[in-house]
Amino acid sequence: MDKINDEYYMGLALDMAEKAQGQTGVNPVVGAVVVKDGAILGLGTHLKRGEPHAEVHALNMAGTTAEGSTVYVSLEPCSHYGTTPPCAARLIAEKVSRVVVACEDPNSQVAGHGIQILRQSGIDVEVGVLRDRALKLNKKFIKYITTGIPYVTIKTASTLDGKIASKTGDSKWISNESSREMVHTLRHRHQGIMVGVGTVIADDPQLTTRLQVPGLSPIRIIVDSKLRIPDSSKVLSDGLAQTIILTTSQVDPTRVSTLKNRGINVLTCGEGPQVDLQDALAKLGELDISSILVEGGGRLNGSLIQNRLVDEIILFFAPKLVGGLEAPGNFRFDGFDLMQDAVSLKDLEVEQIGDNICIRGIPDWP
Amino acid sequence: MDKINDEYYMGLALDMAEKAQGQTGVNPVVGAVVVKDGAILGLGTHLKRGEPHAEVHALNMAGTTAEGSTVYVSLEPCSHYGTTPPCAARLIAEKVSRVVVACEDPNSQVAGHGIQILRQSGIDVEVGVLRDRALKLNKKFIKYITTGIPYVTIKTASTLDGKIASKTGDSKWISNESSREMVHTLRHRHQGIMVGVGTVIADDPQLTTRLQVPGLSPIRIIVDSKLRIPDSSKVLSDGLAQTIILTTSQVDPTRVSTLKNRGINVLTCGEGPQVDLQDALAKLGELDISSILVEGGGRLNGSLIQNRLVDEIILFFAPKLVGGLEAPGNFRFDGFDLMQDAVSLKDLEVEQIGDNICIRGIPDWP
Repeated sequence: MDKINDEYYMGLALDMAEKAQGQTGVNPVVGAVVVKDGAILGLGTHLKRGEPHAEVHALNMAGTTAEGSTVYVSLEPCSHYGTTPPCAARLIAEKVSRVVVACEDPNSQVAGHGIQILRQSGIDVEVGVLRDRALKLNKKFIKYITTGIPYVTIKTASTLDGKIASKTGDSKWISNESSREMVHTLRHRHQGIMVGVGTVIADDPQLTTRLQVPGLSPIRIIVDSKLRIPDSSKVLSDGLAQTIILTTSQVDPTRVSTLKNRGINVLTCGEGPQVDLQDALAKLGELDISSILVEGGGRLNGSLIQNRLVDEIILFFAPKLVGGLEAPGNFRFDGFDLMQDAVSLKDLEVEQIGDNICIRGIPDWP
Repeated sequence: MDKINDEYYMGLALDMAEKAQGQTGVNPVVGAVVVKDGAILGLGTHLKRGEPHAEVHALNMAGTTAEGSTVYVSLEPCSHYGTTPPCAARLIAEKVSRVVVACEDPNSQVAGHGIQILRQSGIDVEVGVLRDRALKLNKKFIKYITTGIPYVTIKTASTLDGKIASKTGDSKWISNESSREMVHTLRHRHQGIMVGVGTVIADDPQLTTRLQVPGLSPIRIIVDSKLRIPDSSKVLSDGLAQTIILTTSQVDPTRVSTLKNRGINVLTCGEGPQVDLQDALAKLGELDISSILVEGGGRLNGSLIQNRLVDEIILFFAPKLVGGLEAPGNFRFDGFDLMQDAVSLKDLEVEQIGDNICIRGIPDWP
């Protein structure tokens, strides 16, 4: 049964933040709850980049009753003028008595500054309530804000013998409907979706988010070192989301111009023959893309693994065996000589989704 | 919380039977509980082929108090003279009042006969209490007694990219210690263990059961179409368990004689070039081997799948990616053109074992 305490209200702040995942762009998800005399007076969550922060929404709802209240906020209130005025100043102006924070600002240059300002104004500040949950919730934001490189999630769907298609290339369907809904939820929660051009040529996918209720579609990122993408591809023509093509300096500049004239952003990543994925991620980060879901084939997955560019791996397994030596596998790369050198996954989460199995983990690079 | 009812006592009968798995040879595992006036008076389980059945042990323990009791037994009492006298007759002689049976004898020719005899003697008989659990517990026995062909379980241990070794053949270790203990428990619970000769050449395994407490070792079955097995192999020389070699009529008869003189049973299964696995299973069934655990490489697993000779598949996954196109996969076979034709597994069970994931299922042949 529920017990009312600091974790109780911080839990609500985090619940609100959790549901806002995917709609804040490069910004973190944050929730805030204003509580006084045993009752919730204000609720807020940051909804969109450039719009008010969680604390501001919650304080607006509380109005003049905020004086003397406790404010629970899942991330340290900001202390600087960004696209909005600093939340720390607002909390002081509203004369709140106590602020409970889940975790410090991950940006080490400003971390602690918001908390310091509040304390200097005589506000009682407590830090660390549900910290682990708060850090996990903003893992993508934290990676991006501290490195400038997007958080990269690889998603695969394979049979139990690791095949993502049959030997003839057939892949309809490996995962069940419920797994596919989860994949579309993942798309909503990433700013970019990346595939190799092989997938575009083979399947001509839309790469949009299709759910029972509308979701947000990520920017489509196609790895295409030789600009083999067909002109008729949906990602070039359907206008459902922005499309970026990653290529190399070896390609024909006229082809690049043609694509750019169609509104496609073409990024030159290295001198080839293959796209320099590290360079690509840096360039995508500069374009304010803080998270990428990779739904590429085994080769793209393998290259990302080999270059240690992966932050999370989510594997869906269907209870099937399809066989075929030449059937494509979920990760195609040179591989390690010894089992002890294999990439291992930590923080494993295993979930059964009907007859599918979902395994998530974080690569633990040696 | 527990509720005392028929399921309560039948649950105990099944618990006892469950723990006896592996020690009854071709016989089923069976438990029996004698209950009267609210108390357990006798417990029994069938321990070994040729020794008393569960009911007999339980009635012996109850002694003269069995009169007027209820006897719970997880399998229909036998009605025929086998290596022991019929249990139905013994129940009648002891004047028990009621018999509760989980499931009928799977052998269709005698099914229901034991129940009929009891009823004809005025004993109240109830059938079907915890039937599904009882049928599942004796799935190996049921397959064997109804077909004469052993129950075949494939066990694999692979990385998340489906590799059972690195490209150099290294496989130490894929699964964790706890998973390996489960594998040794599986060995204890199967009468035979089957590998390809490639595994013997590469690893020279003992294929015995090694647990924290002693277990029973299965008969070692080596698939070796060209009799390539090295004379110095442990399975030929350590004497820790019986060894059977499956080969074809193409091999050198002198080599066969040499092996036979060493006490190795060599079975000729077809005219080659490959061992006829269907014929092999029939011959192993004739040798009173009712269950086989296959710990072979991907090729043996694949052949068994392609020939639909598999009753259960147990896959252990380690949270690793090892890569390597030439690294061996868990199932190597020609494969299907379409995903919809893939072998699917039903009755899935997923278990997390530390950082390993165990997935069990029953092939659902199209």
